[in-house]
Amino acid sequence: MFNTITIIGPGLLGASLLQAARKNGLCKRTVAWSRRPETRIKCEQQDWCDTITATLSEAAAKGDLIVVCTPVETIVPIIQEIQAHLQPGTIITDVGSTKSLVCRQAHAAVPEGTHFIGSHPMAGSEKTGLEHAQADLFQRRACFVTPLLDTDATACEKVVRFWTQIGMDVQTTNPEKHDEIVANISHLPHILASTLCCHLAKQDTTWINYAGGGLRDTTRIASGDPHLWKSIIQQNREEILHAITGFEQEIHNMRAAIYNDNLFDVINILERGKQYRDRFCP
Amino acid sequence: MFNTITIIGPGLLGASLLQAARKNGLCKRTVAWSRRPETRIKCEQQDWCDTITATLSEAAAKGDLIVVCTPVETIVPIIQEIQAHLQPGTIITDVGSTKSLVCRQAHAAVPEGTHFIGSHPMAGSEKTGLEHAQADLFQRRACFVTPLLDTDATACEKVVRFWTQIGMDVQTTNPEKHDEIVANISHLPHILASTLCCHLAKQDTTWINYAGGGLRDTTRIASGDPHLWKSIIQQNREEILHAITGFEQEIHNMRAAIYNDNLFDVINILERGKQYRDRFCP
Repeated sequence: MFNTITIIGPGLLGASLLQAARKNGLCKRTVAWSRRPETRIKCEQQDWCDTITATLSEAAAKGDLIVVCTPVETIVPIIQEIQAHLQPGTIITDVGSTKSLVCRQAHAAVPEGTHFIGSHPMAGSEKTGLEHAQADLFQRRACFVTPLLDTDATACEKVVRFWTQIGMDVQTTNPEKHDEIVANISHLPHILASTLCCHLAKQDTTWINYAGGGLRDTTRIASGDPHLWKSIIQQNREEILHAITGFEQEIHNMRAAIYNDNLFDVINILERGKQYRDRFCP
Repeated sequence: MFNTITIIGPGLLGASLLQAARKNGLCKRTVAWSRRPETRIKCEQQDWCDTITATLSEAAAKGDLIVVCTPVETIVPIIQEIQAHLQPGTIITDVGSTKSLVCRQAHAAVPEGTHFIGSHPMAGSEKTGLEHAQADLFQRRACFVTPLLDTDATACEKVVRFWTQIGMDVQTTNPEKHDEIVANISHLPHILASTLCCHLAKQDTTWINYAGGGLRDTTRIASGDPHLWKSIIQQNREEILHAITGFEQEIHNMRAAIYNDNLFDVINILERGKQYRDRFCP
């Protein structure tokens, strides 16, 4: 249990996290800070938030667990800004979708006796903002915790325990492996949804009126925030390029099989796809 | 209103159709026939089915509206088989996902004084079989009706009225335009879901345990029946190849933008994708 959890950036994830922490009795006090005054004012009206600080450094000084819930490209700059204000022993984590760059730079930025351990809770929604927050957002979802080789083991365990206690299935792995995994299971699907929509936007756009549930589901994530996803793509560039190249080979194989009337290959691709998809729990 | 609606192939769509026709009072009697004896036996226990015939020709002889609800490659052979048994004035339609080949061949196969008009109700599920049938499957979904230039106008209107009365939003168009539209909004998304799953199946398959709602939604349709989809791909080969080529250009553009660190282009693709997706009704 922590004394005070500080959330930097109380959007959908940050606000849901404080609700979940409060509901599960994981801290005595909750603190939040947002760069936007309008978000700070909204937070004052929320019962899951005890204190809104006027400055980032005040928020950082109060927490013995600090969770940075801001867009991925701002995590390291924020940690560099707060590092002089941390209490000894403070643990800092984040919720960023990419880990290699963030973990190495944040680990280097925090002072001796405080700890940065990267996290990536695989929860969220294409909706954003604290208005959509919910305490059960994290229930039975996967969460990566990505310590480095010289990360403090006790601090790491505290972070794993925290995510477990709000209901997540935690997996520890190194930041590079994490980035390879999410490039394939999260970033590539997002890019496919976006590019499929771009392709359709170039056709007759009234066709959307005839679309069934298939297109609706396939493209849902394309509604995500473009600026957020631009940063994710930028931070996980190498692994994403690798994943796209692998996918392009598959779609090339499918096009060749159709073009050559090779129905054996067509059905083989469809069957291997179905076999994989059917492994999802219903 | 029809006297007797005959369904050839009472699977998910056919059985749902009879339930919807009965619920909306669109016929006096319902008849079904399936090639499989086990399905014929199941139909005997259903209150939405008045008569199960032992033979295809008997089923065809009874209906003044016949709806062929079998896989797309079997529609024309079935119509060729029943054409000698039709009552004068009988209207035949289908629920096939491709229309050009089916409409031309079926139109040529039916005798003078009877009418084939192609239909494609955009309803369904990755689940199959009459066990999953439901009368409201068609509510507020799109339905194409695809007459040829020399199709009887009165017969066409009756088919349009039928789909409208079970709750669908009907659009008439020619079979070629239909096939171009569905290649883009239905067949291409299916192929992307299947090939994405194939790509992921070649990676570490335990990664599926970390997948979030994004991957789940993006790939849902990959669970569809591979044999059914092989036939759809075979029947709509040219338009699908055209759609894949268009999509490949988009994913190529995205990969180039990422590779070249051209963040302006990256965000432009993400924004155009979001703009298109946000046009879906919520």
